[in-house]
Amino acid sequence: MEISQIGEFGLIDRITQPLKPTNASTLVGVGDDCAVLGFDGSTRQLVTTDLLMEGIHFDLVYTPLRHLGYKAVMVNLSDVYAMNGTPRQITVSLGIDQRLQVEDIEELYAGMRLACERHGVDIVGGDTCASMTGLCISITCIGEALDADIVRRSGAKPTNLICCSGNLGAAYLGLQLLEREKAIYFQQIKERKITPDSPFQPEFSGREYLLERILKPEARRDVIMRLREAQLLPTSMMDISDGLSSELLHICKASGVGCRLYEERIPLDFQTAAAAEELNLNVSTCALNGGEDYELLFTLPLSCHEKALQLDDIKIIGHITEASEGTVMVARGGSEISLKAQGWALEKAPGAM
Amino acid sequence: MEISQIGEFGLIDRITQPLKPTNASTLVGVGDDCAVLGFDGSTRQLVTTDLLMEGIHFDLVYTPLRHLGYKAVMVNLSDVYAMNGTPRQITVSLGIDQRLQVEDIEELYAGMRLACERHGVDIVGGDTCASMTGLCISITCIGEALDADIVRRSGAKPTNLICCSGNLGAAYLGLQLLEREKAIYFQQIKERKITPDSPFQPEFSGREYLLERILKPEARRDVIMRLREAQLLPTSMMDISDGLSSELLHICKASGVGCRLYEERIPLDFQTAAAAEELNLNVSTCALNGGEDYELLFTLPLSCHEKALQLDDIKIIGHITEASEGTVMVARGGSEISLKAQGWALEKAPGAM
Repeated sequence: MEISQIGEFGLIDRITQPLKPTNASTLVGVGDDCAVLGFDGSTRQLVTTDLLMEGIHFDLVYTPLRHLGYKAVMVNLSDVYAMNGTPRQITVSLGIDQRLQVEDIEELYAGMRLACERHGVDIVGGDTCASMTGLCISITCIGEALDADIVRRSGAKPTNLICCSGNLGAAYLGLQLLEREKAIYFQQIKERKITPDSPFQPEFSGREYLLERILKPEARRDVIMRLREAQLLPTSMMDISDGLSSELLHICKASGVGCRLYEERIPLDFQTAAAAEELNLNVSTCALNGGEDYELLFTLPLSCHEKALQLDDIKIIGHITEASEGTVMVARGGSEISLKAQGWALEKAPGAM
Repeated sequence: MEISQIGEFGLIDRITQPLKPTNASTLVGVGDDCAVLGFDGSTRQLVTTDLLMEGIHFDLVYTPLRHLGYKAVMVNLSDVYAMNGTPRQITVSLGIDQRLQVEDIEELYAGMRLACERHGVDIVGGDTCASMTGLCISITCIGEALDADIVRRSGAKPTNLICCSGNLGAAYLGLQLLEREKAIYFQQIKERKITPDSPFQPEFSGREYLLERILKPEARRDVIMRLREAQLLPTSMMDISDGLSSELLHICKASGVGCRLYEERIPLDFQTAAAAEELNLNVSTCALNGGEDYELLFTLPLSCHEKALQLDDIKIIGHITEASEGTVMVARGGSEISLKAQGWALEKAPGAM
């Protein structure tokens, strides 16, 4: 059977279904942003891992290695924050092909170290080996949290408010711009208007924010801190890496609930809207299915409504319903659309992480 | 600068040198078989990770996927045992290329699950993505140990006995046989004596043990258990993955000592010696530099000599000296040879893990 027939999530279901934890220290196994381990102390360990492959998750034509290192760490930290934990350690494994030089790996590491310094994380180990075909980065992050503070995907309840940090779709549009300029660059080389050595000026003016969102995302520790200061504990949470639609469906499935999302409330940056217009893309589709936002999606009890409204850079975008009411988006015109997952899965576009 | 100019260890030194842990929970960072973490309990967490790339670490022409899954787990467990810990959890990340089908990944996972079941380990998470170019497996293992039980590389003292479990060089010779038969197979196809679909009978009779050592190694939990039963706590320990010579030098460097290794005491299986003869290889060189043995190398106080002699499947192969006496192997004829590391590094042969 081809993997494309069942997709990434189908494959994961199939291979993880027989996995039943046997150790008392395995509190949560496969199926959330992190696994949760508990040994003899009251602190829990949160464990998450990501594998990034050149040609699938990043394109070195337009990705500076320092940014790539920074991002590779951030996507892991984001998973720890999404459990309301504090990241502490990472291990870094690199598969390196011959094209890369010592200085390249130092650049990559400089980005990783910067990300770690900013978030108080230690690089504690790893593995380095050759690769036949492109750069491969595997990072595992270990965080900590007290039991009572851990937020899982499964705690959303009907009437809960659905909240989202920052804005969505920007990274996806940044990627489209990078891909467009890359295509122009190679076209000009093909037509011999430029040589690979000549300077090439890509057209990104006014779109710097979108490039930053795709090339150098920031895990939302600030949001976690703000929630703690406001003494708000989400009932469920995850980070938005595969697109709002896919993540909201994960929360609904894990919590056994439905949802009602309002299209007009999905937070968008002005540049995102302008670039979508320019590229003739539907901006809501970009926000729903684009992915790579690394914002936080969470639910709060309805009683927290006043407090939630005052949270900086957080928007209430809908509410949780009974499962029987389905997973619905209320479109701008008022019509109701059934939400569908369009995660990037195994066929994801080059450049997506 | 080309990475080959400074080698794998040179590169690792360069990128990990600026890493200073900042978290109180990071007890041991880069530089041993595992990192050691300590949160609020008395149990320590041991963390190790390995990255396996197709074409570098394994060759699917002769590696059954079930065996590969089993081995990919074992190499991680071996690192936890080498710290005298108990492995508890692993995460598994896979980069999968289009050639592989759902059933292939299930086979790989079946091997991983078998390894986990035998060692009481839970698979708690991971990542699955596409790969442009071959299978990529990244596993991180978390183990546990009490502080007083953890054995590092750095505790060897002059007069300590150098001990080694099992026997060495078998995996390396198994690999040579697999590569020989693979070459014959492709030669016969090239000469049109067979087609890729015809049955091919490789010549391995009497060498099954060597194939098992390369394709399905076993992490030496039994040795750890035997040491505990005998109430023997090694002063230093590591697993032999890059070859006895390289590992012994690691222990000497980390401990600030020298060593005296006796060639005639290096444990060899009969099949290893016979295959080396057949392939016209020096069997000691295979044992010293071959790698992939996944045996345990450890040091014990001289006072444990009697007890050590009684340990099943453990051999005393030399002793630790003052650093000033150097790292020496006493050859069969009595001449003294300076030990040199010949780890597999970034240029390692296909098939080596």
